[in-house]
Amino acid sequence: MDHSAALLEGFLARTLRASAERGGAPRLAAAMQHAVFPAGARIRPRLCLAVAQACGAPRAPSVIAAAAAIELLHCASLVHDDLPCFDNADRRRGRPSVHRAFGERLAVLAGDALIVAAFEAVAQERQASSEQRVQLLALLARAAGTPHGLAAGQAWECEPACELGQYQRAKTGSLFSAATAAGAIAAGVDPEPWLSVGEAIGEAYQVADDICDVSASTEALGKPTGRDADLGRPNAVDRLGMCQARAHLQTLVSASIERMPRCPGADALQATLLAATEQLLDRRSARPAA
Amino acid sequence: MDHSAALLEGFLARTLRASAERGGAPRLAAAMQHAVFPAGARIRPRLCLAVAQACGAPRAPSVIAAAAAIELLHCASLVHDDLPCFDNADRRRGRPSVHRAFGERLAVLAGDALIVAAFEAVAQERQASSEQRVQLLALLARAAGTPHGLAAGQAWECEPACELGQYQRAKTGSLFSAATAAGAIAAGVDPEPWLSVGEAIGEAYQVADDICDVSASTEALGKPTGRDADLGRPNAVDRLGMCQARAHLQTLVSASIERMPRCPGADALQATLLAATEQLLDRRSARPAA
Repeated sequence: MDHSAALLEGFLARTLRASAERGGAPRLAAAMQHAVFPAGARIRPRLCLAVAQACGAPRAPSVIAAAAAIELLHCASLVHDDLPCFDNADRRRGRPSVHRAFGERLAVLAGDALIVAAFEAVAQERQASSEQRVQLLALLARAAGTPHGLAAGQAWECEPACELGQYQRAKTGSLFSAATAAGAIAAGVDPEPWLSVGEAIGEAYQVADDICDVSASTEALGKPTGRDADLGRPNAVDRLGMCQARAHLQTLVSASIERMPRCPGADALQATLLAATEQLLDRRSARPAA
Repeated sequence: MDHSAALLEGFLARTLRASAERGGAPRLAAAMQHAVFPAGARIRPRLCLAVAQACGAPRAPSVIAAAAAIELLHCASLVHDDLPCFDNADRRRGRPSVHRAFGERLAVLAGDALIVAAFEAVAQERQASSEQRVQLLALLARAAGTPHGLAAGQAWECEPACELGQYQRAKTGSLFSAATAAGAIAAGVDPEPWLSVGEAIGEAYQVADDICDVSASTEALGKPTGRDADLGRPNAVDRLGMCQARAHLQTLVSASIERMPRCPGADALQATLLAATEQLLDRRSARPAA
């Protein structure tokens, strides 16, 4: 694990420990811990850290808090997505989902508390300027809420009809855009071009996730596969076929690289992106012979 | 309705309309609207406005956004509290609860989106300084999250045992303290003494609510009564008897007034508090003869 990733894990651990140690409700603290640890792939916060590094400011004061906030919002959305009224998922990251381990009430509350913790992490980051914190907080709110954030994305599943791109941009793209833009804000550069880099990466991730849903094993993925078909959700592999879907993924990753503004560490970031793409696609290798 | 209250309603309406008009998921926008309008008593945001006024700054740039954020967090907690896995409440403010009107999934998401909207409202309030916005956002996060905020308060209901005072301070007191402290921050004065004023008011409100739960009619309250007994929750009237509970309420309101720091509009604020107490207790007059 590189230095920034270790700082991120430490920050997340401290954030959750503070909940448990200062007299908070113990089962809620445990449910929040269960939602965030052990670490998933941490793709979004790693992207945030990578962008700050690419922009030449890997140690910017707010970057760890911003990356942690992105991950906390992501974990909150997984906890709520897994609830019986949504996906009714029994497993996540190879373990029981939060509502299976702690009950539905604590899953609702853990999600709520993780959303709040994301904002608190940035608001309390005293090493960063107030201007930067406010800019990050407004970005996080846009990414998490309505009309185009995570909550809105999930809500499109409750509408009689929706445009696929709009749904995916809100449900997946919003947090990827926020991750890249947050890295830029933390580094003190204009976040605007980075939003569209994040959008392309988010779209690529969506396709990669669709590929995994169709082809990986439950063991390799740590969560049930074939869920899109079970839940009647759109999936790029169904739409394009596996071969075309993989090609589309490569195109999207290339697009994200082309959109990248000039910055000192562009090469390293591009390598990170390509490695992340490989990592996602490699899950296929764990596919059982059947 | 006074000027500030009208500005608050306008701010809340614009906040929710923005969700609906900029291409957000229509049913989510409708569920959020249903959670916030028509207005409940707006006790917490009115308290925030009243404190800013008492501190001599009723038109401070951030006060309306802060008061609106407090109300959005409160509405979010009501939506989630009413869910089948918690109180399973069919009615709220005289109408079907959000999950009864829109389904459980949209109730979960509306709560999430309202939490985010609260933070967004303050983060985007460009008329206020970044310092003030960050201070307000950190305050809101403490009040809404863990270990001592709204989510923690609700989570104590999921523990095998809890200390009553701790539960009530988190579930009810936290948002009252945040309301008074936010009014002070918006007015540019030290929020610290106002936190304890808000605590006493919150405790008084809890007792008043317990009295209403026992004695008011469902029609007068707009939500089911007798819920504490049904759900096995602690209630001040059960503990003290009706007469003592009313006396205790008066004592707590007096305590809140005594804790109030010197400020230009202390008299008016004290009158507002006493009127709010009367208003709550007057619900008893709607009690059916039976």
